[in-house]
This record gives sequence, structure tokens and C-alpha cells, in this order.
Amino acid sequence: MATLGFVGLGVMGGQMVKRLLDKGHRVTGYNRTRSKAQWLIDAGMRWADSPRAVAEASDVVLSMVTDSKALRAVTDGPDGIVAGLSAGRIYVDMSTVSPAASRELAARVSSAGAAMLDAPVSGSVITLQQGKLSVMVGGSREVFDRARPILEDIGPKVTHVGENGLAVSMKIATNLSLAVQMLAFSEGVLLAEKSGIAREVAVDVLTHSVIASPMVQYRGPFVLQMPDEAWFNVGMMQKDLNLAQEMGQRLDVPLPTTAATNEMLTAARGMGLADKDFAVVFEVLARMAGVTT
Amino acid sequence: MATLGFVGLGVMGGQMVKRLLDKGHRVTGYNRTRSKAQWLIDAGMRWADSPRAVAEASDVVLSMVTDSKALRAVTDGPDGIVAGLSAGRIYVDMSTVSPAASRELAARVSSAGAAMLDAPVSGSVITLQQGKLSVMVGGSREVFDRARPILEDIGPKVTHVGENGLAVSMKIATNLSLAVQMLAFSEGVLLAEKSGIAREVAVDVLTHSVIASPMVQYRGPFVLQMPDEAWFNVGMMQKDLNLAQEMGQRLDVPLPTTAATNEMLTAARGMGLADKDFAVVFEVLARMAGVTT
Amino acid sequence: MATLGFVGLGVMGGQMVKRLLDKGHRVTGYNRTRSKAQWLIDAGMRWADSPRAVAEASDVVLSMVTDSKALRAVTDGPDGIVAGLSAGRIYVDMSTVSPAASRELAARVSSAGAAMLDAPVSGSVITLQQGKLSVMVGGSREVFDRARPILEDIGPKVTHVGENGLAVSMKIATNLSLAVQMLAFSEGVLLAEKSGIAREVAVDVLTHSVIASPMVQYRGPFVLQMPDEAWFNVGMMQKDLNLAQEMGQRLDVPLPTTAATNEMLTAARGMGLADKDFAVVFEVLARMAGVTT
Amino acid sequence: MATLGFVGLGVMGGQMVKRLLDKGHRVTGYNRTRSKAQWLIDAGMRWADSPRAVAEASDVVLSMVTDSKALRAVTDGPDGIVAGLSAGRIYVDMSTVSPAASRELAARVSSAGAAMLDAPVSGSVITLQQGKLSVMVGGSREVFDRARPILEDIGPKVTHVGENGLAVSMKIATNLSLAVQMLAFSEGVLLAEKSGIAREVAVDVLTHSVIASPMVQYRGPFVLQMPDEAWFNVGMMQKDLNLAQEMGQRLDVPLPTTAATNEMLTAARGMGLADKDFAVVFEVLARMAGVTT
Repeated sequence: MATLGFVGLGVMGGQMVKRLLDKGHRVTGYNRTRSKAQWLIDAGMRWADSPRAVAEASDVVLSMVTDSKALRAVTDGPDGIVAGLSAGRIYVDMSTVSPAASRELAARVSSAGAAMLDAPVSGSVITLQQGKLSVMVGGSREVFDRARPILEDIGPKVTHVGENGLAVSMKIATNLSLAVQMLAFSEGVLLAEKSGIAREVAVDVLTHSVIASPMVQYRGPFVLQMPDEAWFNVGMMQKDLNLAQEMGQRLDVPLPTTAATNEMLTAARGMGLADKDFAVVFEVLARMAGVTT
Repeated sequence: MATLGFVGLGVMGGQMVKRLLDKGHRVTGYNRTRSKAQWLIDAGMRWADSPRAVAEASDVVLSMVTDSKALRAVTDGPDGIVAGLSAGRIYVDMSTVSPAASRELAARVSSAGAAMLDAPVSGSVITLQQGKLSVMVGGSREVFDRARPILEDIGPKVTHVGENGLAVSMKIATNLSLAVQMLAFSEGVLLAEKSGIAREVAVDVLTHSVIASPMVQYRGPFVLQMPDEAWFNVGMMQKDLNLAQEMGQRLDVPLPTTAATNEMLTAARGMGLADKDFAVVFEVLARMAGVTT
Repeated sequence: MATLGFVGLGVMGGQMVKRLLDKGHRVTGYNRTRSKAQWLIDAGMRWADSPRAVAEASDVVLSMVTDSKALRAVTDGPDGIVAGLSAGRIYVDMSTVSPAASRELAARVSSAGAAMLDAPVSGSVITLQQGKLSVMVGGSREVFDRARPILEDIGPKVTHVGENGLAVSMKIATNLSLAVQMLAFSEGVLLAEKSGIAREVAVDVLTHSVIASPMVQYRGPFVLQMPDEAWFNVGMMQKDLNLAQEMGQRLDVPLPTTAATNEMLTAARGMGLADKDFAVVFEVLARMAGVTT
Repeated sequence: MATLGFVGLGVMGGQMVKRLLDKGHRVTGYNRTRSKAQWLIDAGMRWADSPRAVAEASDVVLSMVTDSKALRAVTDGPDGIVAGLSAGRIYVDMSTVSPAASRELAARVSSAGAAMLDAPVSGSVITLQQGKLSVMVGGSREVFDRARPILEDIGPKVTHVGENGLAVSMKIATNLSLAVQMLAFSEGVLLAEKSGIAREVAVDVLTHSVIASPMVQYRGPFVLQMPDEAWFNVGMMQKDLNLAQEMGQRLDVPLPTTAATNEMLTAARGMGLADKDFAVVFEVLARMAGVTT
């Protein structure tokens, strides 16, 4: 069994490492703040002092960070992952960054003699814990085949979508539906509520109906009680919708529902709700409908 | 155990009766075309010669027909369900009709001394066969409690949403998301495809992602191969979106994604695709994007 | 010169009669409230005691009322215009009603041996006083040619658009742009204002730019100071947009900007602004942008 | 009277110089292709061999080029306008570039001891020739007051909107209405046409109605006959709408009609109509409506 490395042990990355340990993998990990990784060390994970050290100790190194800037912080420089890669190694980045940034990094990994895969996931921590996560993978088929068993131990659903960068494109093409589905869901809840149906009942019915995607199931109840801390806030969602719209213009694909929804996220910011989870489009629509929530 | 009646033994109604028979209920049924009911008679259903005869033979009578006109055909007149109802009986209509039509019928049933529930379902035949159907119920709580065990044998998820007519309102509030989710899904597939990902792969990833509602799971693959016969065609979907928009105007609820989507259904008709399943919004968008399908 | 009749002497109708008198026409008039017509009587108009009496006294009778209901009130019954029409007379209705209602009335006028034209106008009282009103006319070409000189004395721009009912259709096709232009104008004003340009300056620039339609010129300044009394309120505008959307669905014409704008009018009602002039879409958008007006 | 310079003698710039010469100004000009300026030289304009030479010869130098790249070509480097500016001179750029690019250039002009104004115009060559052009001006009030008489000889409507860069912002806030008005106009024409009104008649009525902005008046007839050469093509219009949407996101202003319209421009590109004047949104909508044009 291959020796694994993992950089970025936040909520999502930490749970992934836990799953890998549970399946019997040997994992070396690194996180900017070591204390957050203590529970994994207690569970058997070895600690390394830098991303480079993780890469040097592993056949396959994975990373999961929040954005392009955080990715550069763990990949670049003398202590970065790229500096620790050598011929024949595989580097799998599971972060959601722009397709261009991902392809550029893959080229640098290739120059170091190693091979990269972009492997963003569709789902939240809950989906992961339920064992229902879906992983999209971009890169060469041969490298994908080698990394596949490891990713299936995270997933289980793993799909090779094409060359480097395409998995990130696929992720953006997926994420636009998150925002649109949430807004359409909100339209339905408000119609029901103003018809005389209790909001709790409307949410219960909709989250058990044919429109209840996993996202609707876990985010729909937010219209009853917004979480104090956003899972994915207005700005993060809008960043993805902007990437989708840029792709749409470059590739000549009109995106009518994405465009209409993005303007409602802008309204969320105008109304002072920028820090909230993007489910706050419900609140924007409710204010337009004269409903006090 | 109560004696049940069922009027309207089409694809959906027929399967419901089959489930009820399988659970040990005695069911008397009627359908406009008797030959279509032969398989149920073979399975133990008793036949009656009119909707009225069904009602007279049953403690609880259910109906499932396509629209308001078909509903009047089985409820009104000397051979209709209402004529066969007597004090203490329950009539459950599972069709999707307008809230006003449903309330008006409930009043007539009440005049006959019986009680009505509107109980539309969310889901297709597939959902029903998987035992995952969701039933919304409108009417008095007391009547609901009496009918509940029967509806759970169809469902299993059964929710009382409020007074007569509100379940139909809830259904319309649900259905708007069908069309919007399908259009957003289409935006994602076309973005992926024009990025260089095979359409089959994009559909596979999306139907296993967090946006994969049951509807996306069974209708998404239509963008690879449209069914010869529409499950729910452009006109039927547009009828529901129009009902949603009328509710929106009456109740002061703006519906931005519903409105944008409805115009794409109009375009489907303009492009000569009116007879297709409403998943054909994909084709409309593909033509706008210059993609030949 | 023909003897003219005019029923409906409100703000618009009254000014039309004044123009006709000024051009030397003999006019007999009727209004539900006689006192509002005193200034026209003082200016030379003869008074008649019913719509029927107006029709009996005139070669060409015109009407200008607010909606279908008001139109029926002056055309139907023993005292209505239709009862006073005889062979060879012309009846010109300038009201904005539904195409179906207009065609139905034209058929009744035809049965009475007379001929009807639907002749709605594009413009407000201000446009009329500036002598810039545009009149669209539906009906037979021969009747149009006979009525044309009279309508040009109101207009001056008079256009025959086709058969009965088509002028009303043309009016609806025109009016959708009123609402859309006002919303796009509002988007521009708010962008300018939040960039740091004073709202007055933005309005001044826009109302002198290439996008300054007559409507933008007279309604644009409403975003600085809403009139106490609506010229054309949210409900009236929404009625026209609904007629446009019904036509769009019947004729398979997608209306993306009309649909998006109609939802903002619904939001205006949700926000308690239903009684305002439809220029209040600015206020809706401003609240979404977090601007207090 | 001040000595004027003018860089960029294309269709618009050339006509501006002609107006200035006609009003008695002395003008020195430069254009990349000298032959295109011969008619102005014949009319009395002096020629200079570089943008820098124009600037050195003038108290006030103006420029009018197509985009940011063309602007850098005439302002930067040893032969550029900035190199030729000296203390006390005024430089007026009338091009439409991004607010950021305009402000950055103003800072460099200021470093050279001179002062810049951004002064984009609203209108086409036709508007200019009709003497109806509107000029928005950004920069200090004192510099504006000095340049005003010259701009009024071009305009005549000249408005100071605020600091450097704000006139370009105002221009973008204006231009979004161009595209939206054109699409709403198209919706109206197609509704009328499918109702049975000849397209020519519908265009005639609309271009004489209250929605007939100057833009609608000169561009509306394009739906009858598209010009061989685009006045302002799909890509140019989309660039302005993208700038508007970027401003909207930065300033928290939702832009529902702009967003809906931008997707139709994307569809124009998808349908292979990118090179056409943006009035081609009519053609996009017509294809969606099943109308062959």
C-alpha cells in the first residue's frame, strides 16, 4: 500500500484523512496550525513540519485548501509541495481554484517529473461522513488509474472527466446549480408560506420531494434557522458564479438562471448580508415579498 | 380494514392500486378504458362500472387523473364520484389541479356529507416503485388522521400541509423547481461540454453530485437521449409555472428563476419542441449556444 | 366637416376634445361626472345626457375610458354608445383594453351597421399637449381613411396597423418597453450614484442621452421626487405586462426583459409600494442595493 | 481662442474636428492613417506627425480612439500625448475605456503638470451631425470650466459629473440601457408581428412612440435591414455590459435587466452572429420564437 501525504487538515481535509486512516492507509500530514491536527495524530497520522516534508515522505500527496492564494502558499517556495516532489510521484489537489490556476500548477508539477491531478469534490462534510462524496478528476488517464483506489476510499464515487483543469471546470459547472436551486427552493417556500402553509411544513415537504437534492436537504432548513457561521458565504458562491459566467462568455454558453441568481447575491450584499451562507437569498426574496423573517 | 375505491387507473394510479393490493387492502376500481385495468383485476382488484359505483362500494375513495377537465368528468353528473358519496365517507383526490378547482370540489363533497382531501404527490412512477413517494395533504386534520394509514401505504412520506386546496398549492410551489433545476442542470452540462468534457461524463458527474435531486437523477440523462414519449411535456410544465406566477402575483412573491425559465419553455414552443418532455430546455439552450445535438 | 361625439372627458379625453374644438370641429360630449366637463362646455362643446345621445348626434363618435369595465359601462345597455349607432357611422375607441374585448365590441358595432376602429395612443397628456402624440389604429382600411383627418387633429402621428384589435395588441407591445426602460434606467442611476455621481446629475445626463425616450424624459425625474399621484401605477403597468406575457405564450414569443421586469413590479407590491407610479421600480432596486431614498 | 489638438480622426473624431473647424477653431490633428484625414486637411486642419507633436502644438488636446489598447498607443511612449504635455495644458480624452484605466492616465497627466478630463459622449455620428450630442465630463471643476466652451462646440449638451473617471462610469451606466432597450424593442416587434402586424408597421409605430429614444429611432430600423457593417458590434456591447456588471458587483447594485440581456448577447455569439451590430439580439429572439428573418 502506498504511503500517503495530506496538506490542509481543516474541516474537510481532516475528515478525509480520518477516512483514509480508518481504511488502513499510512498518512503523513501537515497543517498551518498544528493544534488542529492533534486529533489526527492521536488517531495515527504522522506529522511533518512542512508541505515539502509531506511530499518527500509520500508516494501520493493530496491537498485541500480554501482558494488559489492558500494553494500557492502550500505549493510554492522552498518549503512547498512542488519542491518536495520527485519523479514518479503523484500530486492530487482537491481544492476548488480556477481552471487556469490549476493547469498552470500541473505544468510546474510536470516539470518536476511528477504528475498532478485536479480532484475537487461535490459535497460537504456531511456528504463525506455519509460516504456519499463525489470526486471529479482531471489529468492523464494513466495517473488517474493509479490514484483511483485512494480517491475511492475518500469518495466513493470517482469520475475521470478529462485533462488537467477539466475537473475544476466541472466543479464550477456543478456549483452554479447550488445557488440556482437554493433560489428556486426559496421561491417555493415563500409561495407556500404566503398561501397559508407553515414554513416548517413547506420545508419538510420540499426536502422530501423529487426536487430534494442533497444540497436542498442540508441547506433547505437554513431558511428556518440560519447557521451562525456560513458554510459557504455569499462572496464564495458569487466567486463561483462569476467563474461560470466568464466560462459562459468564453465558450458562448448563455446562462439565464445563473445570471438571474447572481444578481440576487449582489442584492444580498447590498442588504448587508454578505457574511451569511448563500442560503440568505431566501432572506433577500423574503424582503422583496414583504415577509419579515 | 377499510374498503377502498380508486378512480383513474393510468400509469400512476394503476401502480398505486397495485401497492395497496400488495399491502392487503381490498380495492374496487374504475377506469375509462377497462382493458387497461385487466392486470389489476387479475391481481385481485374488483371492478365497478362507474365512478359512482366505486364511491358507493367504498369507505375511502381515491382518484388520480390528469387535469381539471378529467377530474370533472369523474366527479360530476349522475355517474360521478360525488353522486356516490354518503355521510362519513372520505374522498381523496391525488390529481394536480388548480387550488381554486380543488377547493370548489371540496365544498361540494362537504355538501354531500362526506369529506375531501387534496393529496397530490411529488414524484414519478419510478419514485413510487422505489417506495420513496411523498404525499402532501390538504383538508381537516381529523379527516387526514383517518386517511393517513392508507396514504402511507402509497407514500410512505405523508405530510398534512393545511386546509383544503393547500396541498395543491404546495405541489405547484414544488413543481417550479423541476423546471428551474432542469435549466440550471442544462447550463452546467453545456459549460462542461464546451470546456471539453464528454456530455455523458458531465451527466454522470452531475447526477452523482450534491445537486442531484431525484428529478435530476431520472431526468438528467434525457439530455443524452430524449424519450420518445414525454413524461411531462412543455405545455404541462408551463401550465404549472403559470399557476405559480399567478400565485406569485396574487401573494406578492417575486419569482425570478421561475420567470426566466418559463420564457425558455416558450422558446421551446417557438422552436417547434412543444411535444417534448420539458427537459427539452436543454435543446433550446444548446441551440442558443450553437451546439448541435 | 363631420359632427363629432366624445365619451369620457377625463384628463386625456378632455384635452383631446379641447384640441378638436381648437381645430374648429363641432363636438358633442358626455362624461359620467358633468362638472368635470364644464370647462369644455365653456369652450364650445355641446353636452349630451348619455353615451347613446352622443352617438345619435354624431357622424363619428370617439371614446376614451380607463379599462374594459368602464368601456362596457359606456357602450352597453339602452343608454350605451352601441344603441345610438346607425348605419354608416364610425365609432373610434381610444381606450387600452384587451385585444379580445376590442374585437368582440367591434363585432357588435358591425351588427349595428356601423364600423369600429380601435385607436389607442402612445403618450401622456404632456405628449398630447406638445402635439407629439402617436395614434395606432386597427380596423378596415376604408374606415381608417375616413377617420384619419380627425385622428390627425389629435395626433398628429397616425398609423393604420391592421384589422380590428391589432392596434390594442400594438399598444401592449409598446407598453412593455415602458417598464423595462424604466428599470434599466434605474440600474444606470444607481450605478452612477454609488460610483459617486450625484443622483440629480445622473438623471440629467441620462435624460439628455441617446437612451432618453420621451418616457425616460418625463418619468426619469420621478427617481428624484415621486409624484404624489401615480400617472400609471404598479397595478396598471403589471396588467399590461401580464397581457404581453399572455400574448407571448399564445404566440410563442419569449420575453426575457419583460419577465424579469414584471417580477420587480411584484416586489414593489410586496414592499408596500403598489399605489405608486411604476417608476417605483427604482425604489425596489435601491432597497436591494442598500440605498435609502 | 485656444489652439486645439485632436488625436484619432476616425468616423466620430473626424466629424468632431469638422465641427470645431466650422466654429472657427484652429485645430492640429493626427491619425494613424494619414489618408483618412485628408478631407480635414483640405478643410483647414493642420497636420502633425505624432500624438506628441499634436500635444506640443496645442493648449487643449483631445483624443477619441476605440479602446484602452488604442488609447495607450497614442498616449504612451516617446511619441505619445503625455510626452508632449506641459504645465497648464489640458488633455481631454473622449474615448470609452474602463474607469480604472482613465484614472490611471489622469494621474500620469497630472504628474506631467497638465490636467486631464474624461469626456465620453452619448450618441452616434448621426446624433453629432444633428447637433444633439451629449458630453459627460470627469475631472476638476476648474479644468472643466476652462474646457467647457470647446466641448459645447462639439456637444452642445455638456455635463460635469464629478472627479476623474466618473464620466466613464456614467457612460457605462448609460450604455447598459442601449442593449436592454434594444432587446425590449425586439420583444415588442415580435409580439406585434406574430399578432399579424407587418414588421415595417410595428417598427414605424414604435419608433414614433413614447419609448422611441434616439437610439431606438436610429437602431430600431435595423430589424428590417441589418447594416453590412456593425456600428457597435456584439463584442463591443458585451464589453460595456461586463464593465457594468463588474461595477454592479463592486458597488452592490443588482442589475436584473442588464444581466438578462447580456446572456442574449452571449447567445448571439453562440449562434454565429458575433460580428453583427448588437441590434442582432432581435435575430436571436426571432430564432427562439421560430421566426425566420
